[in-house]
Amino acid sequence: MALLRSVGVKAGKGSSSFFSLTRRLVHGAQPLSVRAFSSAVSPPSKAVVYELHGSPDTVTKLIDLPPVEIKESDVCVKMLAAPINPSDINRIEGVYPVRPPPPAIGGYEGVGEVHSVGSAVTALSPGDWVIPSPPSFGTWQTYIVKNQNVWHKINKDVPIEYAATITVNPLTALRMLEDYITLNSGDAIVQNGATSMVGKCVIQIAQSRGIHNINIVRDRAGIDEVKEKLKKLGADEVYTESQLEVKNVKSLLGDIPEPSLGFNCVGGNSASLVLKFLRQGGTMVTYGGMSKKPITVSTSSFIFKDLSLRGFWLQKWMTTDKAGESRKMIDRLLGLVRDGKLIYDMEIVPFDNFKTALDKALGKLGSQPKQVIIF
Amino acid sequence: MALLRSVGVKAGKGSSSFFSLTRRLVHGAQPLSVRAFSSAVSPPSKAVVYELHGSPDTVTKLIDLPPVEIKESDVCVKMLAAPINPSDINRIEGVYPVRPPPPAIGGYEGVGEVHSVGSAVTALSPGDWVIPSPPSFGTWQTYIVKNQNVWHKINKDVPIEYAATITVNPLTALRMLEDYITLNSGDAIVQNGATSMVGKCVIQIAQSRGIHNINIVRDRAGIDEVKEKLKKLGADEVYTESQLEVKNVKSLLGDIPEPSLGFNCVGGNSASLVLKFLRQGGTMVTYGGMSKKPITVSTSSFIFKDLSLRGFWLQKWMTTDKAGESRKMIDRLLGLVRDGKLIYDMEIVPFDNFKTALDKALGKLGSQPKQVIIF
Repeated sequence: MALLRSVGVKAGKGSSSFFSLTRRLVHGAQPLSVRAFSSAVSPPSKAVVYELHGSPDTVTKLIDLPPVEIKESDVCVKMLAAPINPSDINRIEGVYPVRPPPPAIGGYEGVGEVHSVGSAVTALSPGDWVIPSPPSFGTWQTYIVKNQNVWHKINKDVPIEYAATITVNPLTALRMLEDYITLNSGDAIVQNGATSMVGKCVIQIAQSRGIHNINIVRDRAGIDEVKEKLKKLGADEVYTESQLEVKNVKSLLGDIPEPSLGFNCVGGNSASLVLKFLRQGGTMVTYGGMSKKPITVSTSSFIFKDLSLRGFWLQKWMTTDKAGESRKMIDRLLGLVRDGKLIYDMEIVPFDNFKTALDKALGKLGSQPKQVIIF
Repeated sequence: MALLRSVGVKAGKGSSSFFSLTRRLVHGAQPLSVRAFSSAVSPPSKAVVYELHGSPDTVTKLIDLPPVEIKESDVCVKMLAAPINPSDINRIEGVYPVRPPPPAIGGYEGVGEVHSVGSAVTALSPGDWVIPSPPSFGTWQTYIVKNQNVWHKINKDVPIEYAATITVNPLTALRMLEDYITLNSGDAIVQNGATSMVGKCVIQIAQSRGIHNINIVRDRAGIDEVKEKLKKLGADEVYTESQLEVKNVKSLLGDIPEPSLGFNCVGGNSASLVLKFLRQGGTMVTYGGMSKKPITVSTSSFIFKDLSLRGFWLQKWMTTDKAGESRKMIDRLLGLVRDGKLIYDMEIVPFDNFKTALDKALGKLGSQPKQVIIF
């Protein structure tokens, strides 16, 4: 594999930044050597790091990190699985508004098993499954030591790839369905990008609440299969963009009421189609821009149709008061997974094949399911 | 003058629709002839009516209407003044979403003097000044008979042209400043179309509350005079669109905080300039689209800058719970007028010159102040 492995402290170029990364991870004040062989240190860790922003396939490296001190309130977690999300890629590229300064370890969510705990930790024990909640930087490594407050213990009754991915995408879907409009059973929502992971979660969470969901997808080969798959998940209606090139999209809806809430992760014409479906006084929430095109809205949509346009960003939401409830929400989502009511496509990839998984996540190998690294 | 005058019921083309207009105005069930010469009827009225939608200068006519029955809870008002607003023109054109079906009398706000009252009316007396509140259709006529609930008595200490125009534009400015964001003294707002009547009201109401206001105007001849005039009204900053073709508009602000609220009545690039000024989490309210161009917004403005885009429409607002407070708001605005704290340009035009006023309101004679008809 193409990733450079290095053990310990390298000489030469890059060593000073690597030193600083090591020092940041060892967040005690004492030099590592004092405690290096005491029982209160982690095993050495293997991590995907980047020392500069840039294209992830050129700037990331797999390196070995030395043991880290485990302080009395710390928990050392052996990571089991972590996904490669688009926002992880954007952070490495340096185009994401909030990101750790390099050198940094990649990744933002994942699941692990408690390996050892500090002397003051009573709520967690070795063998427990935990996820960082709120999610935090640096999940692409084999061992992580962080304060016990970071870790949320979860039940072991779901596949690890779901536990590893439950926060960034499913929680976005759940919050968007609950934070903007009070939806009741029988109401309707509309979304574009319905085949995305968030899109599929929206369909299933909406269905579990009796909310009709209208879905817009790109025109593509094999569209009948795509539609059938989404309908099996719980989609009420699935339209391609070209099917919606009609004057009155609402005439297509039949008995489904006009949606009061719409989700946009595409932009451009696809966002305009979401707006066309919305009822008087409706709200469109933007959470992505896959087409890289802006959103264009007529004046009358605001004045006479009284539409509201908002945005959702999970990382910002995690800093709000509501985030205090996020662990309960995670448990609720994991409950849906356990009951078979929340499913989405993932490809499980051993850590040694990280480079291939990254290439797939970067879109170099065509459309691919979510890549989840198993450590 | 070019307007066709007709008295009573015309024969031939159009007479049936004129009949229906007359019947609608005489809102008692009894035939007019029964009570035509009793004391409980209004004087005959002269009104600007249109029987079809179309360009106002071709479809409107000045006609005489017969006396109207004054029922026990009705008030007969001799109109004193009423403006020609852009929305009046759009209603006649048939392009406004809510409009009376033709044949109809033009106008939507104004001020009048009570001429006579029905037997059960005690709160109003002949000589009182009243405005229809909420505003209602048909103010372009000399006498109006409507239920006492329609009329809001006002003090006579303001010029009639201000009383006639206090609802549609100043109330829009007031509500937009108060309904979306809680603004405190020292906060800032930004708006485009600052020379419009609403724009000038925003400047003055904001100043009266200690709110900084940043104003964007079109590049035009005599721009220095325009800026000076707005600054005299209370504008903190006035920029032309071309002055804002810089990377970081916020560097222009000096000690003024980033605005949390913006108003857009232009669209296109001018709306984008309002968005550029807004702080993280800010809201832009659209209430007009003078450029006839849509509003274009980047995906990141919604996700990472957390902007909200909304609309304001007074006619819709008048149907909400908050509208119950509108008469108090009108009195507050008239108080600002009385104290010299709310001024705007108007041209007073005798009713006989309605056609010329209409041409000016239609923009046929270049930029003109608000046209206010005096009856």
